[in-house]
Amino acid sequence: MSDLLVVGSVALDTVKTPFGKVKEVLGGSATYFSYAASFYTRVRLVAAVGADFPPEHARFLQDRGVDVSGLMTSPEGKTFRWTGEYGYDLNEAKTLDTQLNVLAEFRPRLGDDARRTPYLFLANIDPDLQLDVVRQMATRPRLIALDTMNFWIQGKREALQRVLREVDVVTINEGEARQLAGEPNLIKAARAIAGMGPRTVVVKRGEYGALMLTESGFFVVPAYPLESVFDPTGAGDTFAGGFMGYLAAQDSLDGSTVRRAVVYGSVMASFTVEDFSLQRLARLKPPEITERYAAFHDLIRLPG
Amino acid sequence: MSDLLVVGSVALDTVKTPFGKVKEVLGGSATYFSYAASFYTRVRLVAAVGADFPPEHARFLQDRGVDVSGLMTSPEGKTFRWTGEYGYDLNEAKTLDTQLNVLAEFRPRLGDDARRTPYLFLANIDPDLQLDVVRQMATRPRLIALDTMNFWIQGKREALQRVLREVDVVTINEGEARQLAGEPNLIKAARAIAGMGPRTVVVKRGEYGALMLTESGFFVVPAYPLESVFDPTGAGDTFAGGFMGYLAAQDSLDGSTVRRAVVYGSVMASFTVEDFSLQRLARLKPPEITERYAAFHDLIRLPG
Repeated sequence: MSDLLVVGSVALDTVKTPFGKVKEVLGGSATYFSYAASFYTRVRLVAAVGADFPPEHARFLQDRGVDVSGLMTSPEGKTFRWTGEYGYDLNEAKTLDTQLNVLAEFRPRLGDDARRTPYLFLANIDPDLQLDVVRQMATRPRLIALDTMNFWIQGKREALQRVLREVDVVTINEGEARQLAGEPNLIKAARAIAGMGPRTVVVKRGEYGALMLTESGFFVVPAYPLESVFDPTGAGDTFAGGFMGYLAAQDSLDGSTVRRAVVYGSVMASFTVEDFSLQRLARLKPPEITERYAAFHDLIRLPG
Repeated sequence: MSDLLVVGSVALDTVKTPFGKVKEVLGGSATYFSYAASFYTRVRLVAAVGADFPPEHARFLQDRGVDVSGLMTSPEGKTFRWTGEYGYDLNEAKTLDTQLNVLAEFRPRLGDDARRTPYLFLANIDPDLQLDVVRQMATRPRLIALDTMNFWIQGKREALQRVLREVDVVTINEGEARQLAGEPNLIKAARAIAGMGPRTVVVKRGEYGALMLTESGFFVVPAYPLESVFDPTGAGDTFAGGFMGYLAAQDSLDGSTVRRAVVYGSVMASFTVEDFSLQRLARLKPPEITERYAAFHDLIRLPG
């Protein structure tokens, strides 16, 4: 079992879906990621919040063993806020408001221990900051994965391509994969992204699951079939948390392990969307993970 | 190995995609279905064409062993024509023109042999005609499957529900499944459709593959990852042809066989979309099917 470091955002989210509404609840890429990964391995979180950040949220992460010593509180700043809405097509959020607040000035500083973490996840932040984190590492991690979004693909493509050359895995939404590659065919797009540096490309497809391209070819998994999807916020970061958490726990990158990691990521994401914020993950018991993984196995099993 | 009967349409299609255009080429649900199924078992086709139907198209089907004695030529009529267009999002066709011609007066009449066929596929035609075909069967087929579309869901819902009560399997597009069930969640929609009669519901999801609900639960498969999709026309009917052809060939409906049938359907569909009309299927050699099935197996294999 190896340690896992995540650098990303911690947020207060206001979300409306056809099934309800929540106001200023715990959110953020690093939050979903670290909480999901904590079911598999030890996680260090590096992020920034403002003085208004409710201390119970930090305790909530600590209670699952997440090392929050890298959660910097800016005494004058306010916590990053995101407001979004989903229609019945839960695949895409409509962003109604973004208040960067402390995120605008966020400069991750890694402590000595953090610099030696063998597994590193660069959640969706400015690619210049992602590269800066990579440069701060005292030893090259065994695995570096990165997530990004349309905002950086459009606005900071060169910086993004610089950091892509340094990472092993990229996780990216389907539409953003097409945008990054400038290619409507997803298979060609995945190959083009692999050509930018990462030897593994994981495309997140919302309710359609995930597609992974590795040096040995493609692996495609559906999403777990759910009768009620409440709120897809955080599903992608939860996926990445389950994926990286499992890899760090196994401390192996062989083909079978990486495939299982994609399914563990999908399992964790399937729980997150069953309730608002991290409420479903907060109730999650490890046997439920085992059970859903087994159900997943049966869901996709093709008899020989 | 059992025989397979298909009742549906034979058409002349005019299709434009971002990759090219074809005019009045061979198409139609029964055509794609029977040609795909002919790789697995003996197929009888029942459909109608006009005097303008090029005789080489009938020979093309005969050359693969399809029994075209049920292809009725109306000496005064014209063949059904469909004109459609696809954008870069190849998932949905925009219908530009439909000329029903002989299809408007089509009343399928089954011969004595046809009435005893053990596997029956009711391709997408008027549900009243689908029910009439079921009533013409001298013995209840071992398996009856049906395909339908938004036009009948909107316009002939009651007739559609009557025939649904008589069939074992329904194949339906994702959007149409939601429409038929009046339910945005696909998993609930599939269960609702199963409640209408068919014990197996196969949802076709275009580039995202297929989802099957049976009495023992869900099976979900992705589409085969293709670098060039030329023309998705006929993919759904080809899928059904591979699916039903394999089941009739195995003459078995056990869980493992039905899962393999879904993958054979996906394999056949993956070939169809690689060229216009039935051009790729016309070049297809059986070893290519075996090869792609094996590649599919590897694509979705989750190590135990």
